[in-house]
Amino acid sequence: MDQRPIGVFDSGVGGLSVVRELCRLLPGEDIVYFGDVGRVPYGTRSREVIYRYASEDLRFLRDRNVKLIIAACGTASSVIDSALTDRLPMPYTGVIEPTARAAAAATRNKKVGIIGTDATIRSGSFVRALHAIDPAIETVGQGCALLVPLVENGYIDFENKVTRLVLEDYLRPIRESGADTLILGCTHFPLLAPIIGDMLGEGVTLIDSGAATAGYIRELLRQTGLENPRTEGGVQRYYISEHTETFARTAELFLGHGITAEYAVAELPLEAEEQA
Amino acid sequence: MDQRPIGVFDSGVGGLSVVRELCRLLPGEDIVYFGDVGRVPYGTRSREVIYRYASEDLRFLRDRNVKLIIAACGTASSVIDSALTDRLPMPYTGVIEPTARAAAAATRNKKVGIIGTDATIRSGSFVRALHAIDPAIETVGQGCALLVPLVENGYIDFENKVTRLVLEDYLRPIRESGADTLILGCTHFPLLAPIIGDMLGEGVTLIDSGAATAGYIRELLRQTGLENPRTEGGVQRYYISEHTETFARTAELFLGHGITAEYAVAELPLEAEEQA
Repeated sequence: MDQRPIGVFDSGVGGLSVVRELCRLLPGEDIVYFGDVGRVPYGTRSREVIYRYASEDLRFLRDRNVKLIIAACGTASSVIDSALTDRLPMPYTGVIEPTARAAAAATRNKKVGIIGTDATIRSGSFVRALHAIDPAIETVGQGCALLVPLVENGYIDFENKVTRLVLEDYLRPIRESGADTLILGCTHFPLLAPIIGDMLGEGVTLIDSGAATAGYIRELLRQTGLENPRTEGGVQRYYISEHTETFARTAELFLGHGITAEYAVAELPLEAEEQA
Repeated sequence: MDQRPIGVFDSGVGGLSVVRELCRLLPGEDIVYFGDVGRVPYGTRSREVIYRYASEDLRFLRDRNVKLIIAACGTASSVIDSALTDRLPMPYTGVIEPTARAAAAATRNKKVGIIGTDATIRSGSFVRALHAIDPAIETVGQGCALLVPLVENGYIDFENKVTRLVLEDYLRPIRESGADTLILGCTHFPLLAPIIGDMLGEGVTLIDSGAATAGYIRELLRQTGLENPRTEGGVQRYYISEHTETFARTAELFLGHGITAEYAVAELPLEAEEQA
């Protein structure tokens, strides 16, 4: 049993879709969230820069006495390596492995589609994670650069013509591949799941990285004995790296409710000194 | 006569639409361009952060021996004040005033529409600049958050259904206002001018901030005697604040040709010390 909070970070607001799933699945757990909204988006940055940002994000959460760290960001997850995580005194997980595991378990015809930011698709990280589980799985990946701005601007209603038109192109290679499972490989995409599900039909199982990661965390907490003894009443605390006018508004899209908990601004650059 | 280059900066690639117009109008001038692609976009940042970035951008160009500085970025232009520009030993212009001047000269019914990023519209800077010229001008502003990602992802072909559908909503208040002039208040928007012009019809004059600014610069150079004696053969030099895989590709959209000149990466944070 461990009453310390779970740490979650993301380049911006998208990771709140993981927070929402954690709250649903583990309502007794406290959560500390860090959104690097002052440096969003990571997806268009160079690998070196994403690596440096991810390293600072990990350190920020590590110093907040969390029992576990989740990189709720496909782009950050895909660059974080053991050189970074070996230094952490607590367990770490990205969204890639839990999501790949859920997809591998779901597919029947061993054909899995992946949609994500261009950086995530280019990194090949979901493909590697799937092949580590089952080398026979065929994959088809599609970068969907416009979906993040569409979601953040509220183009998420079920009948939205713009979003459906954009998805028409993005989903074509997925359809043509015959994949029976599609990884929503970006924390923004669960908000489009009803539309994507409608367009692909019931034959395709959607794997939401937030839900998959929350499920994995529940299992991990049980196995390691790190669960909070409480079963309800968990509190969330939010840090962002810059005060922006849009944070609270966009957060509501992802959480399904406003940020009622307090939130604080962590000055950038994040604390620079490394604890040995 | 002054052979030093003209300095141009932007938060990213959009300012290249100003470079293109400068090259066309003043083919003998050398240009130094700085694109802060490592911190793009500015439009979603807080005012304080945009101000700090703009101040660093100005200093970066000032230290490159330019004879004139252009902030080719609506967002940066709208926060730069005399506290920043009074310290510069060379003339400075943003895109706001030259564009407002061209719009005020073009309108017949004194109704001017303005489209830009949300931050630019919220700042009210185009409205203030128009009213400084003619307080009788009525304005209608519309933030168009999705147009920048649409342009950067190449949704710019004349028949593009997605872009036309998005513009349908954005242009509605402009149409309903009866404005006869529309300011394209973001350096990305000239790439959509053919579509916007087609949708609004010939009764509405489009004011391209790049062309308006280049026209103003030509006039300013003549008046101040700062023209380059050459009338052709100007060279461009590009600096970006981070090496990204997309810079050269996106640059081509804006320049109409590839970056054939060299480009260099300026490390962030930009030189920190201030010259007294």
